[in-house]
Amino acid sequence: MSVLERIQGPDDLKALTRPELDTLAREIRTFLVDEVSRTGGHLGPNLGVVELTIAIHRVFSSPRDAVVFDTGHQSYVHKLLTGRHDFSGLRKQGGLSGYPSRAESEHDVVESSHASSSLSWAHGIAAGRVVAGERDRHTIAVIGDGALTGGMAWEAINNIAAERDLPLVIVVNDNERSYAPTRGGLADHLATLRTTRGYERFLDWGKSTLHRTPVVGGAMYETLHGVKKGIKDIVAPQGLFEDLGLKYIGPVDGHDEAALEQALRRARSFDGPVLVHVITQKGKGYDPAVNDESDQFHAVGVINPETGLPLEISGRSWTDEFSDALVQLGEEREDVVAITAAMMIPVGLDAFAKRFPKRTFDVGIAEQHATTMAAGLAYAGLHPVVAIYATFLNRAFDQLLMDCALHKAGVTFVLDRSGVTGPDGASHHGMWDMSLVGVVPGLHLAAPRDGQQIPLALRAAVDISDAPSVIRFPKGSAGDAIAAVRSVGGVDVLAEPDDGSVDLLLVGVGSMAATALTVADKLGAEGFRVRVVDPVWALPVNPVLGELADAAGRVAVVEDNSVSGGVGSHVVQSLRDTGSDVPVDLFGLPREFLDHGSRGQVLDRVGLTPEAIAEKLHDTLR
Amino acid sequence: MSVLERIQGPDDLKALTRPELDTLAREIRTFLVDEVSRTGGHLGPNLGVVELTIAIHRVFSSPRDAVVFDTGHQSYVHKLLTGRHDFSGLRKQGGLSGYPSRAESEHDVVESSHASSSLSWAHGIAAGRVVAGERDRHTIAVIGDGALTGGMAWEAINNIAAERDLPLVIVVNDNERSYAPTRGGLADHLATLRTTRGYERFLDWGKSTLHRTPVVGGAMYETLHGVKKGIKDIVAPQGLFEDLGLKYIGPVDGHDEAALEQALRRARSFDGPVLVHVITQKGKGYDPAVNDESDQFHAVGVINPETGLPLEISGRSWTDEFSDALVQLGEEREDVVAITAAMMIPVGLDAFAKRFPKRTFDVGIAEQHATTMAAGLAYAGLHPVVAIYATFLNRAFDQLLMDCALHKAGVTFVLDRSGVTGPDGASHHGMWDMSLVGVVPGLHLAAPRDGQQIPLALRAAVDISDAPSVIRFPKGSAGDAIAAVRSVGGVDVLAEPDDGSVDLLLVGVGSMAATALTVADKLGAEGFRVRVVDPVWALPVNPVLGELADAAGRVAVVEDNSVSGGVGSHVVQSLRDTGSDVPVDLFGLPREFLDHGSRGQVLDRVGLTPEAIAEKLHDTLR
Repeated sequence: MSVLERIQGPDDLKALTRPELDTLAREIRTFLVDEVSRTGGHLGPNLGVVELTIAIHRVFSSPRDAVVFDTGHQSYVHKLLTGRHDFSGLRKQGGLSGYPSRAESEHDVVESSHASSSLSWAHGIAAGRVVAGERDRHTIAVIGDGALTGGMAWEAINNIAAERDLPLVIVVNDNERSYAPTRGGLADHLATLRTTRGYERFLDWGKSTLHRTPVVGGAMYETLHGVKKGIKDIVAPQGLFEDLGLKYIGPVDGHDEAALEQALRRARSFDGPVLVHVITQKGKGYDPAVNDESDQFHAVGVINPETGLPLEISGRSWTDEFSDALVQLGEEREDVVAITAAMMIPVGLDAFAKRFPKRTFDVGIAEQHATTMAAGLAYAGLHPVVAIYATFLNRAFDQLLMDCALHKAGVTFVLDRSGVTGPDGASHHGMWDMSLVGVVPGLHLAAPRDGQQIPLALRAAVDISDAPSVIRFPKGSAGDAIAAVRSVGGVDVLAEPDDGSVDLLLVGVGSMAATALTVADKLGAEGFRVRVVDPVWALPVNPVLGELADAAGRVAVVEDNSVSGGVGSHVVQSLRDTGSDVPVDLFGLPREFLDHGSRGQVLDRVGLTPEAIAEKLHDTLR
Repeated sequence: MSVLERIQGPDDLKALTRPELDTLAREIRTFLVDEVSRTGGHLGPNLGVVELTIAIHRVFSSPRDAVVFDTGHQSYVHKLLTGRHDFSGLRKQGGLSGYPSRAESEHDVVESSHASSSLSWAHGIAAGRVVAGERDRHTIAVIGDGALTGGMAWEAINNIAAERDLPLVIVVNDNERSYAPTRGGLADHLATLRTTRGYERFLDWGKSTLHRTPVVGGAMYETLHGVKKGIKDIVAPQGLFEDLGLKYIGPVDGHDEAALEQALRRARSFDGPVLVHVITQKGKGYDPAVNDESDQFHAVGVINPETGLPLEISGRSWTDEFSDALVQLGEEREDVVAITAAMMIPVGLDAFAKRFPKRTFDVGIAEQHATTMAAGLAYAGLHPVVAIYATFLNRAFDQLLMDCALHKAGVTFVLDRSGVTGPDGASHHGMWDMSLVGVVPGLHLAAPRDGQQIPLALRAAVDISDAPSVIRFPKGSAGDAIAAVRSVGGVDVLAEPDDGSVDLLLVGVGSMAATALTVADKLGAEGFRVRVVDPVWALPVNPVLGELADAAGRVAVVEDNSVSGGVGSHVVQSLRDTGSDVPVDLFGLPREFLDHGSRGQVLDRVGLTPEAIAEKLHDTLR
């Protein structure tokens, strides 16, 4: 029996000898490489935190002590150490979640995968323990250097630093990059902390020097203290965190388990919040991951474990289409600039950045800043394109509303991974973006139905200079092009009866246009006469839809957004505004969180398949 | 002619002599006290920035250089210096806005009043100038110490610090409080910067000392540098900002115009971003404002200029009712804790804080942190009540969705100043809150119709332990109680015909219940039979509404939220889900920004008066 197989919970760890711990770390790495290459998942981040997770579970006592992982994709080792050894269904329906999950284990606290939230969680939990008279229960937050660039993390640190007696340990997992190399003043500061060693040696020398220094009256003590701090600053300048009043321990070698334990024990015994700065190497122990500069090992599909190369290569993705279209537009228009929040490659901005480095801004995990900075760039006469995952726009709603829309800023938001994304689970679906942007006055929204529509939509969006515009598309392959039969006042008709009357106007929003066409085929086979349209601009609602609706006498809208506040609800409102009483059926995602599973499985679960929609409409039309 | 009367633009300032500048500052203070006491407005913050605003406009050249005010209520002096001398209509319909306004002046850049956004704006504008080849145009952001606690400000500083050659000046207006005394690690750090003077004197002494210090080989230079920095740190420890790589100048006396000019000229000539730390006194020159500890002078109604006391005292406000109810609940339940984001008094938490100081958390201007910290407190077994302005919930949508709702956290949000607030203008209306919370799975929403309903709603909300709950109410006097005729399955019937059939089900949401009753009276006078109901819980939609709707055959919903995604749209969806085709008329706020004016004027403008609604329904019913 391997050491790993003997670990059914954190208590089993505490009895292990030093050689057994070394063996365990090796076994975990082998396990992760083998398993994640079979299932897909976040490999690099988890290889980097093997020793750190072991040390945390040896020093602290979960679940009595709460361990909070920021962006929980780094929790695979934690899952193993808390008794979850079956990774065969990782991120699949019915299998282990790719993030912590309270339903899976009492050791899992925070499930979400949006970055920079862990310190606020930890503050709340630790403060709650104090109020409840349980000051002996510790809270540990593990946060990456990238996530520290997020504003939430700052808000939390500012508060935590002021609470001098909270039993709270912040572990900064510093691997010099989150999705990509971390940028900004904080990153430079961390780099200084990392690269400046030998502090103790210098300090010893400094002390002896100081004792020979002439002194002047009462200022002696303070000056000595200041000089000492000065030496400390150049040799191990932990200035930033200590300036805020937060105790700092580090830097610690994140692959030296014994050193980690020692640092964590010091932190645990300290009477107040402590920051432990740990240096790790993403992908540690797996050469393809360490050597990969494009960071594709952040999250991998199914790969060959020897080479680390993907086993499956799909066709051109929606992201590829956007990426090419933006470069083309950049060649034509000098005023087009691009912004990403630490997701240069995943959102397809790398080609633009390579071609136009001075017109590309990577602001770190800082969606709020990205959005308002875009408003500023627009004020200066440029047209910014903010490329972002749909789910992360949640973080910047206020900025979209107040800084962009209220100020009539011509900013284009390109929302990748919208709709049902699949294996990443509830917090990664982009199912609220259209509801959010739908309340923003003046905003224009396009959901291209196929890859070929992306350049057209992007060009049209960038031509809007007095309001924000949004283009949203899903994850994965863009699939086949869908030709329009004809265009009516800006609305593309995708299918309709050859002549005569129509029983139903079926509106397919974005990638659901393909679904709408299949629905129409099924209904057509039963004798119903259906006209399928793509509104091209989903918002504001094109009045032509009202005319087509009146002609049909019944409307159905299909979208992969929440039905609450989605495009369908705007169509209803638009019809009511013109005095039309034409009934509208809305097909979209329910007002609930959707667990992980493949995109197809999730759509099936919520009844958003052509079969389910056709069946329901069949009943209605009859 | 006074000096002030001669100032029609920034150029006029540049010709003034030192005595004239002193006179100007005095004249501006007298003007502000006289005018704002007549009109109401933000008095204290503007009295504090008289010299600072003069200095900025003398050193820089607006509008060629862009001046961005964070939370623009501190822009009154700027308005005066850029030629706007008629304050008689301040914050009134048709008069000057209480914030910068692009429609008013080319000198106004950012109109919004949500804190912490100015640095992102400034980064965007400055970066845009560089891309456009206009590096000689400066951008100046003026931000308070309170706003620096907001996460957005951190995201921006982290980015700005990394841009070594941006022509950008950050002026930190440090008055030791924003709405109330600023808290947190940053506040402590700023206090250290403020209180430690005499840096230059110490540095001189330090230098001479160092030259007599024995040195060891090659380490000499670095050690000297470090020692020097150490002395600097204890005497004027600008550590935090310089650690991030940002040039720091200060602290500067914010009421010494000549010193301010000198510092700003140094900043302007520096080749890169600079932070200038200015110490000001809120309410400077007006004793009632300086001496007021409760900070009521942050924003004043109409006051007596001699005493600073309000001239009008209205009845009990919605906030008062909540404040009392929460204290009562706190007495009964030890697990109830309260959170505010730097708005202790305005949201009515001061009484609870006084009674239960250890169960109250003021996190600074940090809505994201407040919301996620609440999720953590709930995880630790407590029930947090987050009291916040409706418009500021925009900043925490992602945290409400992901941290509270996804984790089934029993957290109650109390949204004050919801609906149309009036004189503060477009960015202070709480007109999107119900649309936002409406998409959140599992969330319960109550909009109490009168002050008496608040304790009931609060008690019911705090009893929900497995989902977030929201209570929203408007600004101002809670008005008269509205009795229910009867209750049907949780829905309060407020008025109905004595017997027989009903022509219309009229749903009054929250404070619009009173409007709905007046509408029913008007329609009743014309012979229409109207049943008026308050759903009590607006979300999830009570199925009883569907039954009542079917009985009436027509429904109208009146709410002071955007019609897009509002309660009305959920009622429509709920009816469709049960197969009901009953038509629904929605009355709410349009999808546009609403300019300042009184609440009544704004409602009149958008057709949300009893007269306008009754007229429209009359046409429909006929």
